[in-house]
Amino acid sequence: MRVGIIGGGQLARMMALAGYPLGLDFDLLEPTADACGAAVVRHLAGDYDDADKLAELARDSDVVTYEFENVPVAGLTSISGQVPIFPPIDALSTAQDRLKEKRLFSALEIPTPVFIPVDSRSELEAAVKHCGLPAVVKTRRFGYDGKGQYVIRTEADIAEAWQGLEGQALIVEQFVAFQRELSIIAVRSTNGEEAFYPLSENTHREGILRVSVPRPQHPMTKLATDYARRLVEDLDYVGVLALELFEKDGELVANEFAPRVHNSGHWTIEGAQTSQFENHLRAILGLPLGSTELNDHAAMVNFIGDAPELPTLLEIPGVHAHIYGKAPRPGRKVGHATIRMPTEKGRNSSLTSLCELAGETPP
Amino acid sequence: MRVGIIGGGQLARMMALAGYPLGLDFDLLEPTADACGAAVVRHLAGDYDDADKLAELARDSDVVTYEFENVPVAGLTSISGQVPIFPPIDALSTAQDRLKEKRLFSALEIPTPVFIPVDSRSELEAAVKHCGLPAVVKTRRFGYDGKGQYVIRTEADIAEAWQGLEGQALIVEQFVAFQRELSIIAVRSTNGEEAFYPLSENTHREGILRVSVPRPQHPMTKLATDYARRLVEDLDYVGVLALELFEKDGELVANEFAPRVHNSGHWTIEGAQTSQFENHLRAILGLPLGSTELNDHAAMVNFIGDAPELPTLLEIPGVHAHIYGKAPRPGRKVGHATIRMPTEKGRNSSLTSLCELAGETPP
Repeated sequence: MRVGIIGGGQLARMMALAGYPLGLDFDLLEPTADACGAAVVRHLAGDYDDADKLAELARDSDVVTYEFENVPVAGLTSISGQVPIFPPIDALSTAQDRLKEKRLFSALEIPTPVFIPVDSRSELEAAVKHCGLPAVVKTRRFGYDGKGQYVIRTEADIAEAWQGLEGQALIVEQFVAFQRELSIIAVRSTNGEEAFYPLSENTHREGILRVSVPRPQHPMTKLATDYARRLVEDLDYVGVLALELFEKDGELVANEFAPRVHNSGHWTIEGAQTSQFENHLRAILGLPLGSTELNDHAAMVNFIGDAPELPTLLEIPGVHAHIYGKAPRPGRKVGHATIRMPTEKGRNSSLTSLCELAGETPP
Repeated sequence: MRVGIIGGGQLARMMALAGYPLGLDFDLLEPTADACGAAVVRHLAGDYDDADKLAELARDSDVVTYEFENVPVAGLTSISGQVPIFPPIDALSTAQDRLKEKRLFSALEIPTPVFIPVDSRSELEAAVKHCGLPAVVKTRRFGYDGKGQYVIRTEADIAEAWQGLEGQALIVEQFVAFQRELSIIAVRSTNGEEAFYPLSENTHREGILRVSVPRPQHPMTKLATDYARRLVEDLDYVGVLALELFEKDGELVANEFAPRVHNSGHWTIEGAQTSQFENHLRAILGLPLGSTELNDHAAMVNFIGDAPELPTLLEIPGVHAHIYGKAPRPGRKVGHATIRMPTEKGRNSSLTSLCELAGETPP
């Protein structure tokens, strides 16, 4: 079977590496010639909305999927009669719009921060007043890794935010002074089979995920799983979905969901019985899902900007390297490493070493 | 770093899939256009002894390795000044000649069956008489998967064996009525670091490996490790080496060694902390070796001729599929599956299901 992937970054790369052992073949639709996915997958060079290339991808594939949420919906719609596309386009289009996304959370009784759509400076001022300070103003569309958003801590910040974002549809949200950032990876198959990974505790810095640690004993696992289940069932979802949550004062508040494999699930490659990448493929192909149980004790650290040298990195006990083959650049995700150790103590010790090497703080 | 691999079968394929996460790139020298390794690796089409292609491979690679032991030594020698080649050519040339191999075992005081080189029918008859019945007559060179050998059970079998093998340099060996076939995978790095996996218990049928089960509690682990250590140190070996042993009456008798990653080590992909493929790459690149400890309870079953359908296969708890993308053909290794389960009981139960599906008998 042949899977067409739109997008050619590290998520496509890891998806293909998880799929080759299943005997699957892949094509990537990706404009960038040196995209890191293209180093290991047959590459169809073209823009994500190139109608001819999309038609070619649809013709050659048994199923089409995507690795990032800013894929143009119009392009996908143009081939939706020709080939199954998963995750469903409706889920993608909801995730692309923070307002639609938050409204869906509300409709499903999944708590969110207070949110207000704004289209003018006066609406922005009113919304900030209503939400209280601090507040966050974000573009409704095309934000990622902290881009396209401002935290408004005093009324004086409003001017700068407006200057940076003016002209785009915006949303103002209450700032959540969370104790912890969590995510849950859900997977649902074409035949409705569902599975949920243990919660990840995530640490961000400068808007970019740095460290994820699975927390299988987290007391709110059942609640988070319930929220994720509501989402995937309402969306008639197929594939992997990541739901990002804030933990605050014993409650969970939904931040956003990603209709794709997710950085906070990278630890599943070694740390779960079946990786999120393999389960995404199994789900979209209607194959039985693999176990989402833990495999020993795991943790993941991202390499941002550049990656440590392999000889140093591989000295850390239980480390598994994932170097994406991308040129170093400030703020760029160029790789990650997973720790997997038989004991929690061993995991924590290696995680400390790995964080030190990567310039991060262990959670 | 770029690794050149001579040979483009499933071992090359799995080596590349293990190396991509380390950020490595690969080239395959392989004459067959549809070789299963070429589906996932940059393919340099050419014979294994094509001088121009070998020179090109040497020029483009930081290190050259190979995935099968019938690589022509002369070709490797021709590029040996230009690029490091691991495992060392001497080890390869020893493994290619059953007589040299057995003599090395003897020199290292590793027990072997009684063996006698023969070059004529009268020598064959004398050797069979000396070894006693049953005996095995094999070509000294280019045998694999039971090819190029005959078991002589009565004197009448000599004629057929001679007819089948006449004209080739031969070796007669005592037939070992073993209780069990075992193997040990050793790995040694350019800087002399060594590691050894737990013993595998292997079941062959029609000369082809069918089932491997790691036996970490096997009482002869220390002895087997000692034999493997003598070999890799004497050969100044670099890379993964597999030593095949017969267990008989509480003793270990060496059958042969393979200077490469080995089918009886495929369970290490999921069942060990670091796979044989990754450790082979780490070894030849001088990187720190990864842990060879077990990861839960594992077992491996080969798919010979054709592979089960994925929907059926993936229903088995703890199963991990490895489908090589080769066309079905009687006697051909087209894939394997590993079972990994948290308990030995669970492993055994899934192994029984998997063997049933593959038409094999659980050990």
